[in-house]
Amino acid sequence: MGIYDKKNASSFALGAQSVFYLLEQRPMDAIRIYVSPKQSRDETYEKLIALAKAHHLPVIENNEKIFKALSEKDNVMMIAEFQKRFSPLDSKANHLVLVNPMNMGNLGTIFRSAVAFGIEDVALIEPCADPYDPKVIRSSMGAAFFLRIHKYKTFEEYEIEAGNRRVFPFMLQASTSIEKVDKQGPWSLVFGNEAKGLDASYLGKGTPVLIPLTRNVDSLNLDNAVAIGLYEFTK
Amino acid sequence: MGIYDKKNASSFALGAQSVFYLLEQRPMDAIRIYVSPKQSRDETYEKLIALAKAHHLPVIENNEKIFKALSEKDNVMMIAEFQKRFSPLDSKANHLVLVNPMNMGNLGTIFRSAVAFGIEDVALIEPCADPYDPKVIRSSMGAAFFLRIHKYKTFEEYEIEAGNRRVFPFMLQASTSIEKVDKQGPWSLVFGNEAKGLDASYLGKGTPVLIPLTRNVDSLNLDNAVAIGLYEFTK
Repeated sequence: MGIYDKKNASSFALGAQSVFYLLEQRPMDAIRIYVSPKQSRDETYEKLIALAKAHHLPVIENNEKIFKALSEKDNVMMIAEFQKRFSPLDSKANHLVLVNPMNMGNLGTIFRSAVAFGIEDVALIEPCADPYDPKVIRSSMGAAFFLRIHKYKTFEEYEIEAGNRRVFPFMLQASTSIEKVDKQGPWSLVFGNEAKGLDASYLGKGTPVLIPLTRNVDSLNLDNAVAIGLYEFTK
Repeated sequence: MGIYDKKNASSFALGAQSVFYLLEQRPMDAIRIYVSPKQSRDETYEKLIALAKAHHLPVIENNEKIFKALSEKDNVMMIAEFQKRFSPLDSKANHLVLVNPMNMGNLGTIFRSAVAFGIEDVALIEPCADPYDPKVIRSSMGAAFFLRIHKYKTFEEYEIEAGNRRVFPFMLQASTSIEKVDKQGPWSLVFGNEAKGLDASYLGKGTPVLIPLTRNVDSLNLDNAVAIGLYEFTK
């Protein structure tokens, strides 16, 4: 991914699904479209060209280099360059809060689960993986474009901006099962880093909860824990 | 991973956690232990040596090559070579059934979730990823050694051997939510391939169920869907 750097103001959505979600959800953020010379002139292509025209977007069809630079696999036929957007979260809505998530594939999968369960607001506590890295967008299958995403320097900074709400840190050291708590919103589900989870200071925040597990594993994979939490709190 | 081939009768567990789970759960399958020359002579090392001695296992401490060949990251200090084992499933127990799972990282994560929710029997319908590939074992963090794993040529072959039970194929086309079904065991939760899910023929098997999602995503990542299914059926 030599041509993308996290300091850039723009990034790239790879593949038809992500490109179409961008154009449907955030046409104002789209900058230009690249179509591979290998893309056949089919219905998907016609739809893309029509959308690009409607939004006055340049379409570049002879830049094979960008496909080689951005796509590890050969099957990407469309790329959209877009402006990265960080939006204030909706203080009345339910939030997903990720403290120091570092794995880009996981982060994209988590975005997809958030959208799957109707969550539209995601807070990231720094340091964290770049939520607009092309790898994250691709792993989210474009779900990132349905979300308001905001980065905060600390959890305390997030708390001040988030407004009055129930806070549920997910911790192995918690004593309350996720089944047992009052789930009336607005709430925030808070998850720690892939390797370390949340540190003990989160035991003093809101209502720490756990997903009951057998003793034979230490923990779940982060994205699986988030998926279960979102499922249980939104059903 | 040049020295491992799926046709081999033996495979490799990488990292202290997987090695210890192997020695605790399946000492009879362990063949030999490799310790990196970089491993310090600490408590973990002493524990490993004592366990190896108790099980009459050779310990090889001067083979740096095998660490280079098997470990992409540098932090693996212990490797155990072990006999691969395929066991008949317990026909009285709950089963997880994976039809044509192909992604090795996903498969390991799914093994970890299965153990986390007390499932000990996993059926794999071929073609499928090799459940004993070192990458799968590593991604399972050793959870694979808590499982009975069996491969079947077809789902029909599995059905005949599995005994009388409730069968729940997870399908986007299903009309019954997982919340609504009778979860008395023994049951089998059945999941399709990462990209394609289960084909329409599974609509005629048992009680097809779905995880209710918003319309903004097509589906969940396979390992997330399995985690939610296991959580809901075992709680």
